[in-house]
Amino acid sequence: MGPQHVTREAAHALRTVDYVLAFAKGQADPLLEVRAEVCRAYGDPPLVVVSDPPRDRDDPDDYARAVHDWHEARVTAHLRVLDERPGDVAMLVWGDPSLYDSTLRIVEAMAQRVDLEVDVTPGISAPQLLAARHRIVLHEVGRPVHVTTGRRLREAIEQGQDNLVVMLNRTLDLAGLEDWRIWWGANLGTPSEELISGRVGDVLRELEEARERARAAAGWVMDLYLLRHR
Amino acid sequence: MGPQHVTREAAHALRTVDYVLAFAKGQADPLLEVRAEVCRAYGDPPLVVVSDPPRDRDDPDDYARAVHDWHEARVTAHLRVLDERPGDVAMLVWGDPSLYDSTLRIVEAMAQRVDLEVDVTPGISAPQLLAARHRIVLHEVGRPVHVTTGRRLREAIEQGQDNLVVMLNRTLDLAGLEDWRIWWGANLGTPSEELISGRVGDVLRELEEARERARAAAGWVMDLYLLRHR
Repeated sequence: MGPQHVTREAAHALRTVDYVLAFAKGQADPLLEVRAEVCRAYGDPPLVVVSDPPRDRDDPDDYARAVHDWHEARVTAHLRVLDERPGDVAMLVWGDPSLYDSTLRIVEAMAQRVDLEVDVTPGISAPQLLAARHRIVLHEVGRPVHVTTGRRLREAIEQGQDNLVVMLNRTLDLAGLEDWRIWWGANLGTPSEELISGRVGDVLRELEEARERARAAAGWVMDLYLLRHR
Repeated sequence: MGPQHVTREAAHALRTVDYVLAFAKGQADPLLEVRAEVCRAYGDPPLVVVSDPPRDRDDPDDYARAVHDWHEARVTAHLRVLDERPGDVAMLVWGDPSLYDSTLRIVEAMAQRVDLEVDVTPGISAPQLLAARHRIVLHEVGRPVHVTTGRRLREAIEQGQDNLVVMLNRTLDLAGLEDWRIWWGANLGTPSEELISGRVGDVLRELEEARERARAAAGWVMDLYLLRHR
């Protein structure tokens, strides 16, 4: 996802705000550069960077709690900036805020503490780019698509789901799913984009190599896939 | 969904094609005007309109078959235009081609008969606009979202799904779901947009009125909702 995926509505918003607020894991955060590129393409509003609070990723049993604490630290950091620089502020979401993104929950928590008027502008999400690149529909005719996380993949399969979009993958754990079909993509819409599709058992090694290639090229990897059993 | 939701990438595509191909239920099809509006906003390519073949909607037991026959008739009609007017052609999808849209299946069938080079440009989909308007995330932290059709809603609920996006609703059948929470929208991004949220039992009547209001204002209604049980 890059400047080419910004809608006219979002471009207009960027051109009219006072500044853009971004969290970053230090000034060398590679995702910060993508945000800067989007800003430069649409009116070049000032980009105010806040250090992202650390997140405890080592407690698999209390994922919701770890996310909650991290959100609270982000809320506090954001309110501090707003206090110093009042005005119209944009927050850029990587993709669309409706799926696996914490921006809206942070803004909601902020709105409970200060008076805010909030507008949400939709954007192109990773599942859509995945489908576009592979030129596929995410489901068979009239059938459902189950969107979940890598963490919950097994739970969904046990439940009988046979057509899944799987996001937020820290690793690829596809053991036992060799006969399923996969459409996979990493770093979609960026120069380090990788795409692979096929029978899981046939493409798994190639896919793991492509994932490491994307990470090496960009300094980060964000991947997702459609997984289907027929 | 209107011209404001077109990305820079899609705008560029519209400005460089030879013409745009659109199916319409007669020249007075109200959805045709939305397509014409998008074309006018981005380079004004010629809009070639093909009459949409009739679709058999009266056979609930063979939905896939009815859809298949309709696709075949569309494929034939489209190939006839391409034969008469060769060139670079755009097909505008209402929203995004990855969810409950037949354009890609038609293009795939065309590519099996003639030599075609196909590019897919993602767009803003209805679930994203729904989420943006209600300023919500489509799932709870780290949880799945099950996307399905009105026709398959009961099946998904029986399966244990408790967080669903429901699309393609011919009617609203929410009996027995009075205690669920709903975020509903119709004709999103257009002048006849309607939005309602609340406990199903509390808002159902208001929602049915809003649905008829949207239909009366636009001459058509396309609605969807997020349904959640806690």
